[in-house]
Amino acid sequence: MMQDGHNRRMRRAGVSGAIAAVICAGYLMAQSAPQPAPKAAAPAANLNQLMRSLFFPHSNVVFFTQRYDPAEVKPASEPSASTDPLTGVFGGWEAVENSALTLADSADLLMTPGRKCSNGRDMPLANADWVQMVNGLRDASMFAYKAALTKDRDKMLQASDVLATSCSNCHGKYRPGNAANRCRP
Amino acid sequence: MMQDGHNRRMRRAGVSGAIAAVICAGYLMAQSAPQPAPKAAAPAANLNQLMRSLFFPHSNVVFFTQRYDPAEVKPASEPSASTDPLTGVFGGWEAVENSALTLADSADLLMTPGRKCSNGRDMPLANADWVQMVNGLRDASMFAYKAALTKDRDKMLQASDVLATSCSNCHGKYRPGNAANRCRP
Repeated sequence: MMQDGHNRRMRRAGVSGAIAAVICAGYLMAQSAPQPAPKAAAPAANLNQLMRSLFFPHSNVVFFTQRYDPAEVKPASEPSASTDPLTGVFGGWEAVENSALTLADSADLLMTPGRKCSNGRDMPLANADWVQMVNGLRDASMFAYKAALTKDRDKMLQASDVLATSCSNCHGKYRPGNAANRCRP
Repeated sequence: MMQDGHNRRMRRAGVSGAIAAVICAGYLMAQSAPQPAPKAAAPAANLNQLMRSLFFPHSNVVFFTQRYDPAEVKPASEPSASTDPLTGVFGGWEAVENSALTLADSADLLMTPGRKCSNGRDMPLANADWVQMVNGLRDASMFAYKAALTKDRDKMLQASDVLATSCSNCHGKYRPGNAANRCRP
């Protein structure tokens, strides 16, 4: 029942309009249709958009623990509609755990063929150090996850250090100040 | 310069500790090492954790526009440390655009082999309707992205409707109240 407000919001949106109907019809048809192949569409976000939307706020959830206790975060007035992982229905330490896991799995999105950097270059997937640093982010995120499970803020200081280092490693090489030089192979 | 606070936070974390050093050494070694294969490690998060951490807050960023104008969101007191996409350095309508893109690309994470549901079942990747509904989420997210680009809140009402429908389609079948029955093949 905890997600009631979120679900109510979804219902409030209604199930009207031609496009919704098409999606719904597609769903019903899929019950008996042969299995469609997964889409091989180009990625939607460029690297910059993904960093701003996903890696930035979720790493901030981990970094938050350096200065504040997640257990003392006041939930949003309407937690089921919260846009902040820390103040939503699944907030506090659970949000720290889950943001760390999300960072770990989202490392996959840094290996998606076809994703562009904001300057139009391809992500340099063939570079040995790119792969190494993506793996470094994954490892650092798992380190943060394990630290979050302990709810020990000294461990979170160390985990924030490890995570920040994994970010900086990649930024240092692939995100120079001059945007034209980013993501060079 | 907009990310200064975030970077400062990262620097404040320091570059000390044995683990950080190992990551750093790995990075330096990678400059000349042969290319390592991408990890084929099991996914870190189960589906429930990913929903709570990623799909829940980012869809709420889209749903937010039903009632409020993203252009009028007050930035956090420290936007570079914000854990809320809407109030951070890259907030407002940009956050709505980017959350929609993030939802679209994160659909890939719903197709990751080996990811478990919270009851221990595998995600039912072989089910035709699962694939169809993952594609439906991707399409709905792109519809929301295009609506966000217009900054037209009437279009966002429609987009919220479409997105909510794509969520409900899957929840209706694969997330019944009894957790033991979730993700049935």
